[in-house]
Amino acid sequence: MTALQASGESAWALWQKVKNEGPLIQCITNFVSMDFMANTLLAAGASPAMAHCKDEVQDFQKIASALLVNVGTLSPDWTEGMRLAAEAANALGKPWVLDPVGAGATPFRTQTIMSLVNLRPTVIRGNASEIMAVAGAAGKTKGVDSTAEPTHALEHAKQLAKDLGCIVAISGATDLVTDGERVAKVSNGVPLLTRITAAGCSVTALIAAFVCCASRDALLATAHALAIFGVAAEVAGDVRGPASLRVELLDNLYSMDETTVRSRVNIQWDC
Amino acid sequence: MTALQASGESAWALWQKVKNEGPLIQCITNFVSMDFMANTLLAAGASPAMAHCKDEVQDFQKIASALLVNVGTLSPDWTEGMRLAAEAANALGKPWVLDPVGAGATPFRTQTIMSLVNLRPTVIRGNASEIMAVAGAAGKTKGVDSTAEPTHALEHAKQLAKDLGCIVAISGATDLVTDGERVAKVSNGVPLLTRITAAGCSVTALIAAFVCCASRDALLATAHALAIFGVAAEVAGDVRGPASLRVELLDNLYSMDETTVRSRVNIQWDC
Amino acid sequence: MTALQASGESAWALWQKVKNEGPLIQCITNFVSMDFMANTLLAAGASPAMAHCKDEVQDFQKIASALLVNVGTLSPDWTEGMRLAAEAANALGKPWVLDPVGAGATPFRTQTIMSLVNLRPTVIRGNASEIMAVAGAAGKTKGVDSTAEPTHALEHAKQLAKDLGCIVAISGATDLVTDGERVAKVSNGVPLLTRITAAGCSVTALIAAFVCCASRDALLATAHALAIFGVAAEVAGDVRGPASLRVELLDNLYSMDETTVRSRVNIQWDC
Repeated sequence: MTALQASGESAWALWQKVKNEGPLIQCITNFVSMDFMANTLLAAGASPAMAHCKDEVQDFQKIASALLVNVGTLSPDWTEGMRLAAEAANALGKPWVLDPVGAGATPFRTQTIMSLVNLRPTVIRGNASEIMAVAGAAGKTKGVDSTAEPTHALEHAKQLAKDLGCIVAISGATDLVTDGERVAKVSNGVPLLTRITAAGCSVTALIAAFVCCASRDALLATAHALAIFGVAAEVAGDVRGPASLRVELLDNLYSMDETTVRSRVNIQWDC
Repeated sequence: MTALQASGESAWALWQKVKNEGPLIQCITNFVSMDFMANTLLAAGASPAMAHCKDEVQDFQKIASALLVNVGTLSPDWTEGMRLAAEAANALGKPWVLDPVGAGATPFRTQTIMSLVNLRPTVIRGNASEIMAVAGAAGKTKGVDSTAEPTHALEHAKQLAKDLGCIVAISGATDLVTDGERVAKVSNGVPLLTRITAAGCSVTALIAAFVCCASRDALLATAHALAIFGVAAEVAGDVRGPASLRVELLDNLYSMDETTVRSRVNIQWDC
Repeated sequence: MTALQASGESAWALWQKVKNEGPLIQCITNFVSMDFMANTLLAAGASPAMAHCKDEVQDFQKIASALLVNVGTLSPDWTEGMRLAAEAANALGKPWVLDPVGAGATPFRTQTIMSLVNLRPTVIRGNASEIMAVAGAAGKTKGVDSTAEPTHALEHAKQLAKDLGCIVAISGATDLVTDGERVAKVSNGVPLLTRITAAGCSVTALIAAFVCCASRDALLATAHALAIFGVAAEVAGDVRGPASLRVELLDNLYSMDETTVRSRVNIQWDC
C-alpha cells in the first residue's frame, strides 16, 4: 500500500519534470503510429521529431534528448537509419528505447530486431510474444498481437535484461517491467486499448520521454510512463468505442491532475 | 423485401464469424490510410498487419488469412512487395483484394495497377472512374475522387469480373458489386463519407476480412462488408462534421448490435 | 476596423470559391501529417492527392490545381519527387507552397530545403526558427518547434520575400504574412494548436488551395487561409484537450457559417 502511494507520487513528480523540460524525442517509427505517437508526446508535454533518414538521424540525435526505435513497417533503408541513430544515442550517452514490433513473425524482421538489440537499448518494450522472440524463446506470434501472457515471458525477460544490462517491459493486462532482478507490476489501463492501433507504440515513445528526464532509475521511469498512459485510458471511463477512447486518452494525457494520477497509479513490486 | 431481410441476417452472421476468428489481414496500403485502416479492422474484430517490404511479405502472408493491396501512395519499391505478396496469396489459396486508387490518373499508376490486376485479385474495389480505367474504358479521373457514376461503370465492371473471374465492386451513393452475372446493390452509408479520407481504403480492408471468413460466396461477403461499414456510418446520425463521423463510425463498428445490423443492411439484387 | 471587416468578407468569399471549385491539391508531405492534411482539405472543400513518386508527380501536377511540398520526414528518394513536382508546377504556371519543416535542424535538411527554395515557391510558410534558417539568419531550431518569435523573424522574412518574389508566412500566436513590402497580421487560432501535430502542415495545404483559387493576391489568400483555419480552432471553444480540438477543428472547417467567419477573421495590416 505504501509502495503504491509512493509510486503515484513519484509518477506525478517525474511527469512534471517531463512537462517542464519538454524533451525532444527523436522517433523512428512505423507509418501507422506516427500521428498518434507524435500527438501522445505533445499531449504529455514532450516534443516529437519524426526523422528517419540515415543522412540526418545522427545530427538529430545531437539535439534530441532520447531516441525511440520502432520496427513496425520495416524496410532495409529504414534499418540503416535506426542503426545509425542508436549508435549516435549510445555515443552521446542518451537513452534509447526499442519496440520490437512483430518479433518472431518473419525471419527478416527477427534478424533486423536482433541486430538492433545487439546495440544495447536502454529499454525494450514489447508484448509477451515479442519479448519471448527477442529472448530466443520458442513462441508463436500472430502478426503484431500477442498470443502469450506476460507471466509466461517474465523469466525470459529477466534473462534478457541481465544479458543486455537493460530494462525489459512486457505489455499486457498487467505490464511487467524488469531489470533482471526487480520486477515492477503495472496494473493500469483498460482492455479496450487492444482495439486501438499504435497504443503500444505510443506508450513506448512516452517511456523514452520519461527515461531521459529521470535522474537515475530507468526501471521506475518505464513503469511510471506505462502507468500514466494507462491511467489516461482508465479515466476515459465508459466510452462508446475505441475511437472515443483514443480521443479521451490524448485529452487526459493533456489535462490529468495530480489527484487523479496519485490515486490511480498502480505499481507494485514483485520482490 | 425478403432478400433485404435475409441480407441483414447473413451480414450479421458473417460478421460474427469475423469477430470469432479475428483474421489477420496483411495490408499493403498507402501512408494516408494506414492508421484509419488498422483501426477499422481492429474495431470490427479483425487484426491488421501493416507490412510492405519485399523481404517479408511472403512470410507474412503465410501467417495471414488474407491480403489487402492499395496503391495510393505508390512507388516502385512498394510495387515489388505488392507483387510478391499477391503471388504468395495466390500460391497459398488465400483471398486478396485490390484497391486501384487513382487508376487513370497517371500512366505510371495505371500501368502498375494493370500489372497487379493481371495477378488476378479475388476482389477489386474502386470508384466508378477507377473501375472504368481498370476495365480499359475511356474515363476521366480527378485525382482519387470519381467524376463518374457507378451505373456508368457497371457494364465495364461486369466484363472485367468475367474476364478475370473475380468480384468487382464500384463504390458510390449506392455500391454495385458483381461477379459478371449477378449484381448486388448496397444502399448503405452517408454522403459525408466522401469528406473523410481513407474511408474507401478502409472498407476494402474490411472486405478482405469478410471474404476470408466466408465459406463460399465472395460476392456476398463483399456486399456484406460494404453494408456493415455503411450502416456504421448511418447510425452515427446527425454528426457535426467529418471528424465526428470518423470517431462515430469506428465506435459503431465496435459496438453495433444485431438489431441495428439486421434492420439497416440494405442489399438488393439486380437480377 | 474597416480592414478587419473587409477581411472577414473577402475570406468568406474566397473560401466559397474554394468550395465551389474543389481544387485538387497535390500534396508531397511527411508521413505524420498525411491523414490530418487530407482530412483538412476535404473538410474545407478541396480535394487532396497524396502522390510523391518521381515517376508520376509531373503527370499529377497536370491534373492538379496546386502543389504542397512539406519536407517533414525527408529522404533523398522523396526529394527528387519534390523537385520534379515543383518544376512541373512552375512550368504549368500553377502555384506551389513550401513548408520547410525543421529548417536549421540538420545540414542535410537545410541543404535540401534551400534547393527547393531556389525553385521559387509561390508561398513559404514556417515557424520563426524555420523562416530564419531559410533566410540564412543565425537561429536555433529545436526539432520542428520554434524557439523564436515571429516578430524576430519578420525582417528576414521580408528580405526573403523580396529576393524570391514570393510570399513568406511566419506562424505563431499572431501569424505574419509578407510579400516583402506589405505585412498582414493574422490573429486567429488558439494556443492549444501547438499541442497538435500536423496543424501547421495542414494549414499550409489549405494555403495552397486558397492561393490557386484566388484570382490575384497570393498574400491575401495566404492570410485568409491562416485566418479561416484559426477561426475553426477558436470556435471549438473550451475543449478538454488536443484530441478534442482536432475533431472540432475539422468539423468546424466543414460546417462554419458566414456570420462566424465574418465576425471572427482578424487580419490587420502593418503598413
